[in-house]
Amino acid sequence: MKCAIFGAAPITGGLDYIRSAMPEGDRVVIAADGGLRYTAALGLTPDIIIGDMDSVRQEDIPAGAILYPSRKDDTDMMLAVKKGLALGADEFFLFGGLGGRLDHTYANFQTLAYLSEHNVRGWLLDENHRVCMLENGELALSPEYRYLSIFAYGGICTGVTITGAEYPLDDAVLEPSFPLGVSNCHAPGDQMRVSVKEGSLLIIQTKLS
Amino acid sequence: MKCAIFGAAPITGGLDYIRSAMPEGDRVVIAADGGLRYTAALGLTPDIIIGDMDSVRQEDIPAGAILYPSRKDDTDMMLAVKKGLALGADEFFLFGGLGGRLDHTYANFQTLAYLSEHNVRGWLLDENHRVCMLENGELALSPEYRYLSIFAYGGICTGVTITGAEYPLDDAVLEPSFPLGVSNCHAPGDQMRVSVKEGSLLIIQTKLS
Repeated sequence: MKCAIFGAAPITGGLDYIRSAMPEGDRVVIAADGGLRYTAALGLTPDIIIGDMDSVRQEDIPAGAILYPSRKDDTDMMLAVKKGLALGADEFFLFGGLGGRLDHTYANFQTLAYLSEHNVRGWLLDENHRVCMLENGELALSPEYRYLSIFAYGGICTGVTITGAEYPLDDAVLEPSFPLGVSNCHAPGDQMRVSVKEGSLLIIQTKLS
Repeated sequence: MKCAIFGAAPITGGLDYIRSAMPEGDRVVIAADGGLRYTAALGLTPDIIIGDMDSVRQEDIPAGAILYPSRKDDTDMMLAVKKGLALGADEFFLFGGLGGRLDHTYANFQTLAYLSEHNVRGWLLDENHRVCMLENGELALSPEYRYLSIFAYGGICTGVTITGAEYPLDDAVLEPSFPLGVSNCHAPGDQMRVSVKEGSLLIIQTKLS
């Protein structure tokens, strides 16, 4: 089962990218706090509404919402992710998690790492970016994004290989204190692939130049 | 000596915050690639212009600019930082380094980590955020920002303590895969301080709610 979660970060480029990125079929839709306004705008009925709801007017909080106090250790996005994991979801699509407050954006990178630790793939999306975490594995990259940047996340990464790219890498070491992997792109006609033997790579794809 | 560097990221909220955050006195001003348009708009003459200049029209590249090819391992911001370090600067103010492409933003977090490894403090600023890296040390936090968020960067952080805050922490452990330190704020009348015994903390302060 797939899980789509809507967070409260400002969505500036319209909702069309969400329509095309939404998982089909067996899925659960979760609105985290202010993400409720995006599910409403998309005409989606969330299966679960969760969070401290401090971005939502009291009278707009639907019956059945799972309320948490504002003073809590989890972000609203983390509450939603834990709920999705408990329901057995094995792939997560996080909307409304980039943009606005930079600390929330970074917290969502950590949420991707949390999902990765649970052996589940998470995608953090906005209209121009797709972000994921790759831990000791390989990923084939969609050609719809112009640039690929990879970063050693949470420690050194070894055995980092990129094929099918303008700037291939072969069994390289990446460190969290040096931005070596920025602005790679697809070699014409090739399928770009990234792999890492040891460590976690934060992978950011962007349509922007 | 202090070093102000201007990167090419879009600055959306006007330049006033730069005027108030610019270091005074003994300083070097570096324009990295498209950051040149911000030094021009501020009426500043950069001491150094550096980068691949792919964001600047050929005819607008000033004489004396230090040109690099586009195919390079360093980002333009890293080139500028290395130059500032070589000149002996011991505190860095990075403008035009947040916003726009998310991979550039993340690369600039790594640049803060690089400065931290060189025992030099770097500040990454936009009109709403101030970001820095704290490695095995203590930092007093300016009260002009509403929220404080801290993240274990590049590995586990131990001995994390926050005083003078709504949510104090005492000798805590933070991990890169769990956003525990989001949305703290100043306790009324107190000076907020953060310290870490072992590891690197990414510290994000924001004026946004």
